[in-house]
Amino acid sequence: MGSFDKIVNLCKNRGFIFPGSEIYDGLANTWDYGPVGVELKNNIKRAWWKKFVQEADNSFGVDADIFMNSKVWDASGHTASFSDPKMDCKCCKTRHRADNLIDAHSKKTVNPDLMSNEEMEQYIYNNKVPCPKCGKCDWTNIRNFNLMFSTSRGVTDEGQNLIYLRPETAQGEFVNFLNVQRSMRAKVPFGIAQIGKAFRNEVTPGNFTFRTIEFEQMEHQWFCKAENSLADYEVYKKKALDFLLSIGFNPEHLRYHDHDKLAHYAKAACDIQFLYPIGWEELNGIHHRGDWDLSRHQEYSGKSMLYLDPYTNEKYIPNVVEYSIGADRLTLAVLCEAYDEQTLEGGDTRVVMHFHPAIAPYKVAVLPLQKNLSEKAMEVYRKLSKNFMVTYDEAGSIGKRYRRQDEIGTPMCVTIDFDTLEDNSVTIRDRDTMEQIRLPIEKLVEYVSEKVQY
Amino acid sequence: MGSFDKIVNLCKNRGFIFPGSEIYDGLANTWDYGPVGVELKNNIKRAWWKKFVQEADNSFGVDADIFMNSKVWDASGHTASFSDPKMDCKCCKTRHRADNLIDAHSKKTVNPDLMSNEEMEQYIYNNKVPCPKCGKCDWTNIRNFNLMFSTSRGVTDEGQNLIYLRPETAQGEFVNFLNVQRSMRAKVPFGIAQIGKAFRNEVTPGNFTFRTIEFEQMEHQWFCKAENSLADYEVYKKKALDFLLSIGFNPEHLRYHDHDKLAHYAKAACDIQFLYPIGWEELNGIHHRGDWDLSRHQEYSGKSMLYLDPYTNEKYIPNVVEYSIGADRLTLAVLCEAYDEQTLEGGDTRVVMHFHPAIAPYKVAVLPLQKNLSEKAMEVYRKLSKNFMVTYDEAGSIGKRYRRQDEIGTPMCVTIDFDTLEDNSVTIRDRDTMEQIRLPIEKLVEYVSEKVQY
Repeated sequence: MGSFDKIVNLCKNRGFIFPGSEIYDGLANTWDYGPVGVELKNNIKRAWWKKFVQEADNSFGVDADIFMNSKVWDASGHTASFSDPKMDCKCCKTRHRADNLIDAHSKKTVNPDLMSNEEMEQYIYNNKVPCPKCGKCDWTNIRNFNLMFSTSRGVTDEGQNLIYLRPETAQGEFVNFLNVQRSMRAKVPFGIAQIGKAFRNEVTPGNFTFRTIEFEQMEHQWFCKAENSLADYEVYKKKALDFLLSIGFNPEHLRYHDHDKLAHYAKAACDIQFLYPIGWEELNGIHHRGDWDLSRHQEYSGKSMLYLDPYTNEKYIPNVVEYSIGADRLTLAVLCEAYDEQTLEGGDTRVVMHFHPAIAPYKVAVLPLQKNLSEKAMEVYRKLSKNFMVTYDEAGSIGKRYRRQDEIGTPMCVTIDFDTLEDNSVTIRDRDTMEQIRLPIEKLVEYVSEKVQY
Repeated sequence: MGSFDKIVNLCKNRGFIFPGSEIYDGLANTWDYGPVGVELKNNIKRAWWKKFVQEADNSFGVDADIFMNSKVWDASGHTASFSDPKMDCKCCKTRHRADNLIDAHSKKTVNPDLMSNEEMEQYIYNNKVPCPKCGKCDWTNIRNFNLMFSTSRGVTDEGQNLIYLRPETAQGEFVNFLNVQRSMRAKVPFGIAQIGKAFRNEVTPGNFTFRTIEFEQMEHQWFCKAENSLADYEVYKKKALDFLLSIGFNPEHLRYHDHDKLAHYAKAACDIQFLYPIGWEELNGIHHRGDWDLSRHQEYSGKSMLYLDPYTNEKYIPNVVEYSIGADRLTLAVLCEAYDEQTLEGGDTRVVMHFHPAIAPYKVAVLPLQKNLSEKAMEVYRKLSKNFMVTYDEAGSIGKRYRRQDEIGTPMCVTIDFDTLEDNSVTIRDRDTMEQIRLPIEKLVEYVSEKVQY
């Protein structure tokens, strides 16, 4: 596993992730996926969709708009309470998060998540927690700042309506519960999955793509009967972990972390944490949400969320087990997990990204040993690129070209040599073992298909 | 081809597209893709990416953030002039688009796109164009309203920065030109492709998903030498059309439409129009943009956009051929194109969506003839769903189940009958011909693979 600095550099130089708007000196906490990164992230999203929609027996995808009727956020509670507790230093006029001040002062021996605003103020006054900027302890009371980005819809002065950029994708699944259930004639228990962007106007600590103001979530809401909900919660804890293992994570770098503090409606909640270069941090969450979400939408919309069970004739509002994972944060974890520096025989070193072949950006690199083999090499490239993302490189020594492919995690390198012109065979070099085998071109598609299977 | 009304109804009832935030009586011009629609749209996006990134010899994908540094929009000209010309009726205080007033009054015999604001005002005064609301002709002068949604970044009062939701994805490709070129060691000519959301605060005419305030663009910018740019423009005109034909469009429903009015920097521009139920309208655009975009970014960012040609040692700013298509609008066109009502022998009717198998939401429906065949049917379902999006249905008569699959365009229905238990074979029914064949289960994956190939 590499340090964040090494990974950020590799990402920029090898086309994974660039700073957003870089030629304009950036925009803080925005990042753009480059040609290699977009393939990696798309492959991760596809793998997730395959497990949680395609191969799941009773799960359905949706793709809801980012803009939603503002009443959605009243119902979800975001309008009232999706905020950070902020205090101003009266001396130097800087603003700080009260919970962060307590975390830093108590070295995380105290948990501000369990405290009310009044309790946080009390702690800060009693312990004379100083301003990190000027060192004085002269604070205003806590004020809460909503983290939703707002904008105005409408192009006339009279008709301006405040709307929000969604701070989470989950509400897109909840407000479509009835539509999905009816149009798909779905029977509880069933799931609704979504991949989409969300936005939060946060002060972020700047750990690369770990926490950004714009990010993509992958979410799966499982609608089930209350009496089965805790068992289903355990099922999704396991499914969430199995998914991570299936795309190549080392189980030793993952752990469950149960939440200390539960929402009043929740029966259970946990994260799966990953051992990032900055330490153990959240990678995804599994939350038992009771019937809170659908009940709130029933209350605020006036539309009944009651489900009529066709087997038992019972009517009830289903419980929800939510499984949520950030596509960007997962991509970052995959990058950290895959990174490896190796010393080779003879003292040479290489950086190699050990991506699972199914999520590797390019599956194959086609490398003609000499430029006058380009024509044959392009023939092989075209044949493969009908089926897989493939890259082509004819510049530099073969050793250098292997190193470049190792750095972007290409699992197979196919070299075209003069024998290829005679026997229609190529050499395939494995990224991880660096072993080489010889294979007829006509077997290539099948060989690669098997290697990248998921 | 169906009317918009029929398609909107089918979309809602069969899980393609729902009105956004519907339980809260919606949010105008937002739409959510349901379980069937999200698969259709994702398949269309994948097909496009396959043609313009995967199989293209020298094209690279990116995925830039929606939030960009605001200077990007100064450089692109959006801050100054991405606006609609609006006039207020002094009598009834309603606001209207001047160009729409002229379009309606002249029955499109006059083209307001070719007129300055002053010329539009003149036309409206001279022709006494009345207010569509109150019938009076007493207008204010034209004022321009910017169509970009804006929001504020930063959570302190002092540090609020105005940022925009991007009104087009194109700038994500342009600002990353240098990063992509360097990290991929790309040689001109090469392309940068992107699929992503964009936002425009427009008054929309409400034609379903034809024009919405939030939409997804698929864009490909081809960076080339000025002397080759017009020839490359012709190549992309053809590629754009070929792509539409490859996913099943009838060539008679498509036509080129050259632009009357060119931007000062452009050498050529055209649309491909599709025959929607509302008539011929734009489906995608191909624009020769000269070196305008990169030159502007060089000017505004101070970063050199000069490319050093390794073959000729010339230094130049590449020209751009832009190809842009809306993923939502294309999905709508696909829905219109696929829609068919058929009268069958015996007078029965069916609605069938003739999607190209590669973009059909589900590839196969698995249908046990009777409920006590469920176990075997689920075995077949699980085998297929490892490879394809598959649906399963055991409710209702087989005829009704076929109709439901026809309405969501499932190309193949696999029925499990009592013989299946004996001979491990199934019946496959073709959506379009309704012909049935018998096939061993072990041949099924291969059979379906061939049918859905793209």
